[in-house]
Amino acid sequence: MAKRTADGTIKTPRNSNFAKLSAGYLFPIVAKKRREYAAAHPDKKVISLGVGDTTHPLPQVVAKAMSDYALGLGTVEGYSGYDPVIVDPVKAEIIKNFYAKMEVTADEVFVSDGSKCDLARFQTLWEGSAKVAIPDPAYPAYVDDTVISGHTGGFNKEKMGYDGIVYMPCNPDNDFFPDLSAAKGCDILYFCNPNNPTGACANRKQLEQLVKFCTEEQILCVFDAAYATYIRDADKPKSIFEIPGARKIAIETNSFSKSAGFTGVRLGWTVVPTEVKYGGGASLRDDYNRVFNTHFNGAANVALAGGLATLQNMPVVTQVIEYYQENTRLIMETFKELGFTGIYGGRNSPYIFVKFPGKGSWEAFDEILEKAQVITTPGVGFGPAGEGFVRVSSYGSRENVVEACRRFKAVGLGK
Amino acid sequence: MAKRTADGTIKTPRNSNFAKLSAGYLFPIVAKKRREYAAAHPDKKVISLGVGDTTHPLPQVVAKAMSDYALGLGTVEGYSGYDPVIVDPVKAEIIKNFYAKMEVTADEVFVSDGSKCDLARFQTLWEGSAKVAIPDPAYPAYVDDTVISGHTGGFNKEKMGYDGIVYMPCNPDNDFFPDLSAAKGCDILYFCNPNNPTGACANRKQLEQLVKFCTEEQILCVFDAAYATYIRDADKPKSIFEIPGARKIAIETNSFSKSAGFTGVRLGWTVVPTEVKYGGGASLRDDYNRVFNTHFNGAANVALAGGLATLQNMPVVTQVIEYYQENTRLIMETFKELGFTGIYGGRNSPYIFVKFPGKGSWEAFDEILEKAQVITTPGVGFGPAGEGFVRVSSYGSRENVVEACRRFKAVGLGK
Repeated sequence: MAKRTADGTIKTPRNSNFAKLSAGYLFPIVAKKRREYAAAHPDKKVISLGVGDTTHPLPQVVAKAMSDYALGLGTVEGYSGYDPVIVDPVKAEIIKNFYAKMEVTADEVFVSDGSKCDLARFQTLWEGSAKVAIPDPAYPAYVDDTVISGHTGGFNKEKMGYDGIVYMPCNPDNDFFPDLSAAKGCDILYFCNPNNPTGACANRKQLEQLVKFCTEEQILCVFDAAYATYIRDADKPKSIFEIPGARKIAIETNSFSKSAGFTGVRLGWTVVPTEVKYGGGASLRDDYNRVFNTHFNGAANVALAGGLATLQNMPVVTQVIEYYQENTRLIMETFKELGFTGIYGGRNSPYIFVKFPGKGSWEAFDEILEKAQVITTPGVGFGPAGEGFVRVSSYGSRENVVEACRRFKAVGLGK
Repeated sequence: MAKRTADGTIKTPRNSNFAKLSAGYLFPIVAKKRREYAAAHPDKKVISLGVGDTTHPLPQVVAKAMSDYALGLGTVEGYSGYDPVIVDPVKAEIIKNFYAKMEVTADEVFVSDGSKCDLARFQTLWEGSAKVAIPDPAYPAYVDDTVISGHTGGFNKEKMGYDGIVYMPCNPDNDFFPDLSAAKGCDILYFCNPNNPTGACANRKQLEQLVKFCTEEQILCVFDAAYATYIRDADKPKSIFEIPGARKIAIETNSFSKSAGFTGVRLGWTVVPTEVKYGGGASLRDDYNRVFNTHFNGAANVALAGGLATLQNMPVVTQVIEYYQENTRLIMETFKELGFTGIYGGRNSPYIFVKFPGKGSWEAFDEILEKAQVITTPGVGFGPAGEGFVRVSSYGSRENVVEACRRFKAVGLGK
């Protein structure tokens, strides 16, 4: 029960963690910079290779399936309310396409409105006292979720991060695979593979190390595989559950956003193996099932119809990924031609992580915007170890990517 | 940092509030009872007037709009990723249809995947120490969210509720409007209007009392208006923001689920006025904006297209509500004919709350299932004050409702 306040309209105690958040969420800031630049230079055409937002139309077969399903909602036979039956075939296809021979069962698959939302729902699972380790740089939601849920102290300007979080630096020196021993004593370890923003993709041996470490240290691994369909190297695992033992210590979230262009359609899933047990024996899957039913009401039925068509037509979906991969190739080639030597990611990821020698990330971001009217994302926005890099996204039309590359060369970027 | 465990695979500290949850979420339990009954009596046709799940097909104009939008996603011009532009006209139509002359602005409207999900996201706004008052009976998510977020002690079998929650009984004696003074000292007060499950709808004077009380006591009112479109009495407010002063102490969530049959389509919204301020002056709207961007990625674009068509064609939507209202009338008439004297709700709500004299709620539930093969929902599942009642939902085809009523009469229900 809180005391009355003189300067508020409610005495409800505010979640004190909000005051710790150092700045706005990264992408709205980038969007603001873009708007400001466009307003000041109305004659210039700004191209975005910034936010990791898909741009290619959905394959016809997927759009058609959603369209048909939506029309069906206007009929007695096709109408569906809560818990549409279509979720079961979607689960079956997810297992078939992503987890064949990995012992994943339907009641371990939670189909949702996306990984970002799942990551938020995970927060409900553990106590505020849990100590969290996060790769640096990484998708900002891991850190922001962790702060809002009360696992940290304030923002520490010296370390450019939050007190209480164990940041695990990933950089060219360690092949963008962190020194796991830094996470000793932690309770939760996030791992994004392929990584956003660096584009790094761990090999089997590295993932075996990860599972071994989490098993020995009894750390829950939150494995984010949202970019797994971009993995081209045949010997690299696409799921943590390819590694023996992972079912005891890992949960894995994945998404249709980047593989199938569903950033606006909203569909994803999380696998929570029944083998993950807390001390005392309680099942993490059962708790998550409860959260999932109490805090959520299922993915949109039309999105599920799109998901089913996607999974039943993976070759068409792969064509879209190949389109982005050609964009990636063009961008990487351009940076090479320009003499950049620190060009990372790209091969197994839609992102290229480029080092701008002698420049800070925001400085490089501003330079690219000013000189070439191209939006990128500052590497430091993903964590202190991203300083000096920018992330270049391959999402965009071929025309825009070609034009961006032309401008980079014309202005002699980095020279 | 947690200690190693002998009986777990992870030492991550479990959210200890899960252990407090007394039982599963209500509706899965009802669904289980239904399945078990159906398995034991394969020859009998079970009719559900249980879960508040819409059954009527979407109006053609809405299904067509979603279908067209989905087809468009397969084209360059029609494709949309994150933050689809269609969200802006949806907000404008929400304001026009629901908040005309109530000073609500677009940046106060958060369009989401539904009220249940918004209620969960609200949990992030306040500290665990916040004391919560909840009408009894009420939609179970208020209590379950509150328990999971750590505002309670354990389940107290004597009071049939959780220690730490202030339950505000609503019953025929107080016209189903609670004694607000019980919430004195609380920090958050939930209010569902029209109420689920009782179907009670507060009048203007009662809502003025509510706003006055929350203003004086500086309590945040979480106002759930998910059933507002069912209000038939012209003098009853459909939004808390019709009451002067509400913009300083209330947030309101609403949904397309029950008004437009979107239980499977998933679309809702919450209005957070800029005037609500915590002690110290921080803005609840700004915090919610941050949560909304960090924990969520927007409603499904196809659902937004359906929402827009709904709001632009409210007369067609009203026809569907009138269909359910006729169901309601038939059910109420049947219970009257059968001699029941405790029949509540119905007029401004899709729910009828029926008192079974001398019987517990689950006993009445079982009797209706056994005798008439009709699923209802036990009132006690919504809170201790619901004991002795069942909630009968008007969602269902006319054919099923007529058949259910015929059976009720044929078996002489309650006699």
